[in-house]
Amino acid sequence: MASAPFNRFVTGVIVFAAVLVGLETYPPLMARYGPALHLLNDLVLAIFALEVLLRMGALWPRPLRYFLDGWNVFDFLIVVGSLLPGLGAYAVAARLLRLLRVLRLIRTLPDLQIILGALLRSIPSIGYVLLLMLLLLYVYAVAGVFLFGANDPFHFGNLHTALLTLFSILTLEGWVDVLRIQYFGCARFELPNPALCTQPQAQPLVAVVYMVSFVLLGTLVFLNLLVGIIVNSMDEMRKSLQERKAPSSDLEARLEE
Amino acid sequence: MASAPFNRFVTGVIVFAAVLVGLETYPPLMARYGPALHLLNDLVLAIFALEVLLRMGALWPRPLRYFLDGWNVFDFLIVVGSLLPGLGAYAVAARLLRLLRVLRLIRTLPDLQIILGALLRSIPSIGYVLLLMLLLLYVYAVAGVFLFGANDPFHFGNLHTALLTLFSILTLEGWVDVLRIQYFGCARFELPNPALCTQPQAQPLVAVVYMVSFVLLGTLVFLNLLVGIIVNSMDEMRKSLQERKAPSSDLEARLEE
Amino acid sequence: MASAPFNRFVTGVIVFAAVLVGLETYPPLMARYGPALHLLNDLVLAIFALEVLLRMGALWPRPLRYFLDGWNVFDFLIVVGSLLPGLGAYAVAARLLRLLRVLRLIRTLPDLQIILGALLRSIPSIGYVLLLMLLLLYVYAVAGVFLFGANDPFHFGNLHTALLTLFSILTLEGWVDVLRIQYFGCARFELPNPALCTQPQAQPLVAVVYMVSFVLLGTLVFLNLLVGIIVNSMDEMRKSLQERKAPSSDLEARLEE
Amino acid sequence: MASAPFNRFVTGVIVFAAVLVGLETYPPLMARYGPALHLLNDLVLAIFALEVLLRMGALWPRPLRYFLDGWNVFDFLIVVGSLLPGLGAYAVAARLLRLLRVLRLIRTLPDLQIILGALLRSIPSIGYVLLLMLLLLYVYAVAGVFLFGANDPFHFGNLHTALLTLFSILTLEGWVDVLRIQYFGCARFELPNPALCTQPQAQPLVAVVYMVSFVLLGTLVFLNLLVGIIVNSMDEMRKSLQERKAPSSDLEARLEE
Repeated sequence: MASAPFNRFVTGVIVFAAVLVGLETYPPLMARYGPALHLLNDLVLAIFALEVLLRMGALWPRPLRYFLDGWNVFDFLIVVGSLLPGLGAYAVAARLLRLLRVLRLIRTLPDLQIILGALLRSIPSIGYVLLLMLLLLYVYAVAGVFLFGANDPFHFGNLHTALLTLFSILTLEGWVDVLRIQYFGCARFELPNPALCTQPQAQPLVAVVYMVSFVLLGTLVFLNLLVGIIVNSMDEMRKSLQERKAPSSDLEARLEE
Repeated sequence: MASAPFNRFVTGVIVFAAVLVGLETYPPLMARYGPALHLLNDLVLAIFALEVLLRMGALWPRPLRYFLDGWNVFDFLIVVGSLLPGLGAYAVAARLLRLLRVLRLIRTLPDLQIILGALLRSIPSIGYVLLLMLLLLYVYAVAGVFLFGANDPFHFGNLHTALLTLFSILTLEGWVDVLRIQYFGCARFELPNPALCTQPQAQPLVAVVYMVSFVLLGTLVFLNLLVGIIVNSMDEMRKSLQERKAPSSDLEARLEE
Repeated sequence: MASAPFNRFVTGVIVFAAVLVGLETYPPLMARYGPALHLLNDLVLAIFALEVLLRMGALWPRPLRYFLDGWNVFDFLIVVGSLLPGLGAYAVAARLLRLLRVLRLIRTLPDLQIILGALLRSIPSIGYVLLLMLLLLYVYAVAGVFLFGANDPFHFGNLHTALLTLFSILTLEGWVDVLRIQYFGCARFELPNPALCTQPQAQPLVAVVYMVSFVLLGTLVFLNLLVGIIVNSMDEMRKSLQERKAPSSDLEARLEE
Repeated sequence: MASAPFNRFVTGVIVFAAVLVGLETYPPLMARYGPALHLLNDLVLAIFALEVLLRMGALWPRPLRYFLDGWNVFDFLIVVGSLLPGLGAYAVAARLLRLLRVLRLIRTLPDLQIILGALLRSIPSIGYVLLLMLLLLYVYAVAGVFLFGANDPFHFGNLHTALLTLFSILTLEGWVDVLRIQYFGCARFELPNPALCTQPQAQPLVAVVYMVSFVLLGTLVFLNLLVGIIVNSMDEMRKSLQERKAPSSDLEARLEE
């Protein structure tokens, strides 16, 4: 059941399903070939349903052990979700479900699974840097609302808006404009939505200290975080790939005997 | 007094105080539940004050040794600051003081303290790169005022404005617009505040040499600085975390005897 | 034929050809010295044609072995392409062909060839990270069209537009504006082409989850990719350069005997 | 003459000169305290001139050996330049000369000199990556003029304009707008200077291939370059600083004997 030709066939069907869902993004195509694409989608669904049954059958007499593997549960939900009749009413949900099928590719390509696993597993190892990052964001966000909330409700109106603003500043996108609004006050440097400027207040010194310190600290901790994840994940990858190659070369050794 | 359950309780109270100060950023919430939040804030303050007294008491008969630890002084000031009656008049100051309580989290989470310490301790080791960076900024800022101050007072009007402009160019945010204002002169490429353009002067060659050299040198030295800090801090972290684990495993070894 | 003076002469001619094609970008120069530049271009072409013949002749009696080397084929096509009479009609194609001559520099400078080779050879080694990147782009692009296609046809009108938008977000260029268009809806935050806003729809929560997760995942995987390529290519470079130096020092050793 | 107190005094005077030249950037200050600042500048100049004479005198009976050191020549030119009477006519030149005095700091701080030296010395080692970068810029710039020069003379009007545009794209600043101008043609996506749009021409496919390939290749090679310089310079720094410490610890060893 987990034989190479079977896996290759399933991978092919997933790639085909990915192309199908991509074609759905072109309205003119959908208008002309909609029924045909619909039929092909049903065919893909049938193959996936059959695959689930086959994989379950292979575990006979204990088919429920199928659900012990997280990926199997994912496959099962994707198939069952598409079979539910009520979903037809929510076009976007049904489409996203069809899109999720593409993620099945991760399972059928073991190397891809290893790389993704390495990336995810390296996150806890930088857990405290992540906590430092969140603490920095939270403290600056609350301080931002207290200091600049009245002058600039567009960027610092409340906590979640301020968090989003600070996240965008972390990517250094448009931070100079945010600084200038607080530096000159919203009356002299326009907000994206000028109607929100009801209490203009220029705070040059506070704004510069707040923004420059956040850009420096934020960039430093964020880069630290990214570098930490990347270095860790590369280590993990190397290890995982070597482990994977080692047994297969054992296998080769046995076959050569 | 420094027992694990006590520390966990204090950590919990700090997280609760962080949530409280976050809720203060939503005016509608404050309008409805203001008194309740005020009461909870007073409760948090009472717990923190009690904690200070308990920690002092634990050092009896020399309670003043409490102030030998920097974090203790920080805790003490946060509590005393909130108890001062006069502060009520400065709402923002009182709020920021409540926000500072969140930073107490760093103390109660030793791993976080280690990471922050590693980050801070790695700064002196790159001291001369930092000095080079500051020298570069200063020389280019003064030169910028001399060369472009008349044409573009918005970005190069005086030394501190030019320093801010150069810092933003260092993050590569909007540097092309700053270049164009000097390249074409403020009459042909508008300033953010066009009224400031009184002496337009196009200096294509000088502007290109100045900006391109600053972007190249600045990016290089800034990246060098960031990489230096990150590499050093990661080394420091690894060392500190190992040192911390080592004695605790010694302790375990002793306990197991 | 592959003697050092010959190679140096050819390198000189290539640099000269590069200057010539650069001069073509100045229309006033072309208007005044057009015929002279044309003549010099013909001279360069003649030298290149002669070089092809000489290199072929050096392989006599098997001149066709010349075509076994990819660079030789490249040289040959550049010469033959410029000799084709019909091409005169397509000015841009003829100019680009003249520009391609500059790339011959890579062949005549062996160190440059090694570095480029190292860069290209390091791509397959990060193949699965590249695949992960493409999968991420594809899934987010299709989801973007489904979720935001109606509200923002400028950025998410169809699959290829969405892919281009996501690639630009990967470079963190203008991603905050793309977010705001979906956050507030195109009626309240203008599209670059406002006429396209026919079905405004504000989706604050979906937009934030979609964009922030893509920026974090995308930056992480993209940086991983870049770092992977750079680390691998630097390793390859060091190896290649050492290999190249080793035999030459062998040679020196032999000569010294 | 090169004694520690003397060096410290000179360093102090240089820092004082740096502060003086910084004060010159504030016109109101100059208006009020101009004559006093002028006097202080003359005093600094006198000290520097005296220093030159003292250093020359220390080499007696061969004072011209003073000019064998590059830094001495730099010091000499700064002093002589300021003493030239004719220069008074060119205010900016005289100011920049006073600004150059700040760079004398590099000489008096040996660690700073080492770091700067390491940074400069690491450039040749990445020479071929730099050449690759320049080749990439040149080829894309000429191709950009041929392909997009008619549609977008603002960014691709001629070779030097295109080189500047590509350098800014290398920093990922505003590259999406440059792409859109070629994608939609300058008639549908406005140039910064709309009057330049005389031959609008939309080239979606060519523009995407050109820009995306340049962003990918350029970022890769540029990052390679930066990482190469930083890694090399950090190596050089470590070596230089160790070499510098080694003899001084020898000295200490001798002193302790």
